[in-house]
Amino acid sequence: MIIVLKPDTTREQMDHIIEKLTGLGLKAHVSAGTERTVIGAIGDERILRTIPLEAFPGVEKVLPILKPFKLASRDFKQENSVIRIGGAEIGGRKLVVMAGPCAVESREQLLEIAGEVKGAGAAFIRGGAFKPRTSPYSFQGLEEEGLKYLAEARQKTGLPVVTEVMDPRDIELIVKYADVLQIGARNMQNFRLLKEVGTYRKPVLLKRGISATIKEWLMSAEYIMSEGNHDVILCERGIRTYETETRNTLDLSAVPVLKQLTHLPVIVDPSHAVGKWELVPPMARAAVAAGADGLLIEVHSNPEEALCDGEQSLKPKMFRQLMSEMRVIAQAVGRDL
Amino acid sequence: MIIVLKPDTTREQMDHIIEKLTGLGLKAHVSAGTERTVIGAIGDERILRTIPLEAFPGVEKVLPILKPFKLASRDFKQENSVIRIGGAEIGGRKLVVMAGPCAVESREQLLEIAGEVKGAGAAFIRGGAFKPRTSPYSFQGLEEEGLKYLAEARQKTGLPVVTEVMDPRDIELIVKYADVLQIGARNMQNFRLLKEVGTYRKPVLLKRGISATIKEWLMSAEYIMSEGNHDVILCERGIRTYETETRNTLDLSAVPVLKQLTHLPVIVDPSHAVGKWELVPPMARAAVAAGADGLLIEVHSNPEEALCDGEQSLKPKMFRQLMSEMRVIAQAVGRDL
Amino acid sequence: MIIVLKPDTTREQMDHIIEKLTGLGLKAHVSAGTERTVIGAIGDERILRTIPLEAFPGVEKVLPILKPFKLASRDFKQENSVIRIGGAEIGGRKLVVMAGPCAVESREQLLEIAGEVKGAGAAFIRGGAFKPRTSPYSFQGLEEEGLKYLAEARQKTGLPVVTEVMDPRDIELIVKYADVLQIGARNMQNFRLLKEVGTYRKPVLLKRGISATIKEWLMSAEYIMSEGNHDVILCERGIRTYETETRNTLDLSAVPVLKQLTHLPVIVDPSHAVGKWELVPPMARAAVAAGADGLLIEVHSNPEEALCDGEQSLKPKMFRQLMSEMRVIAQAVGRDL
Amino acid sequence: MIIVLKPDTTREQMDHIIEKLTGLGLKAHVSAGTERTVIGAIGDERILRTIPLEAFPGVEKVLPILKPFKLASRDFKQENSVIRIGGAEIGGRKLVVMAGPCAVESREQLLEIAGEVKGAGAAFIRGGAFKPRTSPYSFQGLEEEGLKYLAEARQKTGLPVVTEVMDPRDIELIVKYADVLQIGARNMQNFRLLKEVGTYRKPVLLKRGISATIKEWLMSAEYIMSEGNHDVILCERGIRTYETETRNTLDLSAVPVLKQLTHLPVIVDPSHAVGKWELVPPMARAAVAAGADGLLIEVHSNPEEALCDGEQSLKPKMFRQLMSEMRVIAQAVGRDL
Repeated sequence: MIIVLKPDTTREQMDHIIEKLTGLGLKAHVSAGTERTVIGAIGDERILRTIPLEAFPGVEKVLPILKPFKLASRDFKQENSVIRIGGAEIGGRKLVVMAGPCAVESREQLLEIAGEVKGAGAAFIRGGAFKPRTSPYSFQGLEEEGLKYLAEARQKTGLPVVTEVMDPRDIELIVKYADVLQIGARNMQNFRLLKEVGTYRKPVLLKRGISATIKEWLMSAEYIMSEGNHDVILCERGIRTYETETRNTLDLSAVPVLKQLTHLPVIVDPSHAVGKWELVPPMARAAVAAGADGLLIEVHSNPEEALCDGEQSLKPKMFRQLMSEMRVIAQAVGRDL
Repeated sequence: MIIVLKPDTTREQMDHIIEKLTGLGLKAHVSAGTERTVIGAIGDERILRTIPLEAFPGVEKVLPILKPFKLASRDFKQENSVIRIGGAEIGGRKLVVMAGPCAVESREQLLEIAGEVKGAGAAFIRGGAFKPRTSPYSFQGLEEEGLKYLAEARQKTGLPVVTEVMDPRDIELIVKYADVLQIGARNMQNFRLLKEVGTYRKPVLLKRGISATIKEWLMSAEYIMSEGNHDVILCERGIRTYETETRNTLDLSAVPVLKQLTHLPVIVDPSHAVGKWELVPPMARAAVAAGADGLLIEVHSNPEEALCDGEQSLKPKMFRQLMSEMRVIAQAVGRDL
Repeated sequence: MIIVLKPDTTREQMDHIIEKLTGLGLKAHVSAGTERTVIGAIGDERILRTIPLEAFPGVEKVLPILKPFKLASRDFKQENSVIRIGGAEIGGRKLVVMAGPCAVESREQLLEIAGEVKGAGAAFIRGGAFKPRTSPYSFQGLEEEGLKYLAEARQKTGLPVVTEVMDPRDIELIVKYADVLQIGARNMQNFRLLKEVGTYRKPVLLKRGISATIKEWLMSAEYIMSEGNHDVILCERGIRTYETETRNTLDLSAVPVLKQLTHLPVIVDPSHAVGKWELVPPMARAAVAAGADGLLIEVHSNPEEALCDGEQSLKPKMFRQLMSEMRVIAQAVGRDL
Repeated sequence: MIIVLKPDTTREQMDHIIEKLTGLGLKAHVSAGTERTVIGAIGDERILRTIPLEAFPGVEKVLPILKPFKLASRDFKQENSVIRIGGAEIGGRKLVVMAGPCAVESREQLLEIAGEVKGAGAAFIRGGAFKPRTSPYSFQGLEEEGLKYLAEARQKTGLPVVTEVMDPRDIELIVKYADVLQIGARNMQNFRLLKEVGTYRKPVLLKRGISATIKEWLMSAEYIMSEGNHDVILCERGIRTYETETRNTLDLSAVPVLKQLTHLPVIVDPSHAVGKWELVPPMARAAVAAGADGLLIEVHSNPEEALCDGEQSLKPKMFRQLMSEMRVIAQAVGRDL
């Protein structure tokens, strides 16, 4: 941590700061420059993060040296984490595609789509039984009934199930049916929920918050990991910007940035990012080229009748075609699909 | 709802859309322009919001006419809602100031600050017992112990208590001690939590999400109201932008915009918005001038030792001075404080 | 154009609006819904864009039906525009890569880099002779001397030259040396400059403004085209968001969005978007996969000594490798490089 | 400047960086922490800003200590700059209001409005003769004819004239008529234009770019000042965010932030920020309460017929009322109007 002092900071103010640092077991390294004096705090700077140094008289600003996350960082673990679920591996050479409807709407709907995505080569079936919806008047999910259909789809297709958890009170129930617990964008900083899923031995798919920085996102992964669950999969799903032609702005550069900062696998959800089905295939292809470890794609047999996100869902035929396009690009970047 | 068709939409595609509308009990009003044909859907457009019209072949875009919220809208209720809590009124002629520390840290700390803010003219004591923190390694709050100190502070000062709810499992406990339930920015779209507080008869202070649009914010108020609890207080607390000189960007224009759109009271939290105590007073004054119904301000007797947000907390003396400055501005805009 | 009236709009106010419309040669089509009355204006809605309809009493909001741009739109021209420069074609099946240093620094520097990028398969040499720099104390470019070196590089390598125009007073000079005139992000809405380059018969590479919407960007293309110059190449170069891990956020979804809205070719500049050389290759590959017609990439033989943007420049060896990676992806999406 | 090294940086890499620093006349101060080694560069860090240190092998990141601007900073000049124009002073105890139409449309229009705003207490008449418009098909201004009307309005009312410069080729003409040269938001980083107005002895009103950081804005002021013209007035006019209820988001906290960073006067343009006339008065009042030195407000006698920005223009009667409201708030914060 570097503490930059104001030009008019007094000797007493500086001593007061140094005293604070040494009281915390850190060493203070003072360096007088031509226009500013700075104090370097030597030791574990994470201790200092909880101290409001900018509230100390004489402090102009504070510059952290280290990242605030630890367990999630490449410094902590150099090699890529590979998460094994059933026969599948996330974070290895082979890309994984998780596909299915936004919401589980009925047994027929889900089983049909599950069969389709399995046939096209998807590795996971996804579908929401508990749905976070902007409006209280929208369809909120089939709840346990939906979970049962997901389990049945897994039984029929062999595909492990990804489904969302919105409320700590539902986890007990959901873990009975799901293989991967999804934390949605709106809950990325629902810290109690993060802690709770951290106490289970189920992989967690952690979506990026709608305006979360990459650092905040990794701090949310840290919340889960600090409870003991290290199987976290990060999912970029578009961020909020001023542009309105797409539902969100897909931040694909987050993929290589994360590959530098963390050992955790990174997948991409182009469907929520763009919000229109015609734009999903080019962005899915781009995600593969950018180095993603997998994709999360919305597929629906009859988008016009979908109870959720119909406008961004691919029909099965288009999904099959996209799978084969992604396969070629995966090979071009030294991966398989 | 106005449905704009693509230039090459076929007769069959158009008929298919009209059929859908009439099947939902709406009337379709076709209007052929020089470059585009549009279909006006006459009837309750809220039905249509759940239909993915953009997934229908031939649809270029869909333009809603009405706001998506109902109970929260000025259309639904013309006069301002005034919320009564103990002797205080929020949304009336008199502004209310809610003040106190970010977190309840100890009995002594809280009682001292409560006495100070009471003396300066605050109408509510605020303080967090359950704290949402970006890092799992930061202080997470005293939980029930903190709630007890808040109740004691109320007893000593007569000030009603505002405190945050983060988890539906804690509400039962918190309502025993609190007068106003605060929903924090990170939980503005924690829909299960919103529904849950909607079933209690306690006023809810709903902070704007860190990148929530005003429409989304009112939809979150609608979630609470649709469960029966109409006592919602909106709190602008800064939004995320690219600017880094302040912690967030205080969107004061949200105040007059909300006054047009909704009957609910609107207060402003300048402390979280700016993130630096020196900037709090000018923005608090500006909030009063912009027409806010109240303020939420962080006050701490010893910011250097604060376990949370010390850098943005006012010391009691400065808070007293700010109160008297705000009083003059309140009068200048025809209000009291 | 759809004009939505307020619930309490009077008959007189509505008549006044209709009168305005008919006075402009448009037909007014009134449609009374259950909660709002709307007026559809039939005719060329572009006339209406210059009328402040929201200033008319009784108007709640105005919803445009058409895009504001015309010459740049797919409605106006269905097939892709292909721009021919020397032997190269931009917008055809073959992707083009424009590469070179941020700034022309010396004759030796430029000729060396030009040779390298030519050898790697680039189709254009780029380099700035007039440089827009955030600080007045930074290197501002070699001006005409730099243009001469660019011309010499073209002579030696056969590569046409792309270089930036910042000031209408320089165009006369620059067109003597350049093959493509670049308008930088900061000048995307320098309307006088746009008009001026619109009067020349030189292709214009129009970078997206740092916070420009896709609509505004196409309106800037329209400025150039409305003066007679239809050879506009759009260049996505990252937009400003709250994320700070990258210099800007590359909005790759702009590529397929533009392919729907316009017939103009679209290229991508990953170097300015990410701001760090290690992140350039994955994003360049992703741009190809997303359907871009070409790339603009910064290459420097000695980035440590670069006078501009050294941290985001690729060394020639890395650029060669990237070219061969992009070639494979181009083929995977049915293109050549 | 603090240079943070990667954990695996070699001795040779570190020596190479130190050599670079000492070669530039700086001293290198190495400090080995527990997890990272940092190098402090002692001396004038502005020299280093032009060196791409992040392109050096072994460098993880670079943290500047000083602000990049100098002439514009409070470090350079402690007391507030007060700019004198005719009888008016900007930056003193008395607030100034600049008012008038968006565009000069005709002699009658301008003279009428000028009389009105003078009567209400405005200190300057504003109006555009050269107009930057998003669409090439919109009204582009009366050019010299408009300037003549402005000069006539000054003669009749005694109010000095503020008008926009878009193109360096027009300055010679405009300075003959104008008292203050306005640089619009879209030209805030038109560096050639900034330099050019820097060579004149006319005060410059520099609007914040639509997505400019406060630092970038002050760097643009620095461009003007570095050419010798120190009479720069900063004008906050709203920034681009994701919120669409207002045209832009007025960043009022920029006012107190600027008061810390710079000695230059700061005014606020609520009209462009909010984009709707009903929202102008509360935000104008808030700007005064936040400590602005003045306001720029659009006034039009007949907004329905305005050729530009009618929807955000106040009618003279409303402007008069706003002036008296602002006067009371000015007094409440120890200023006059």
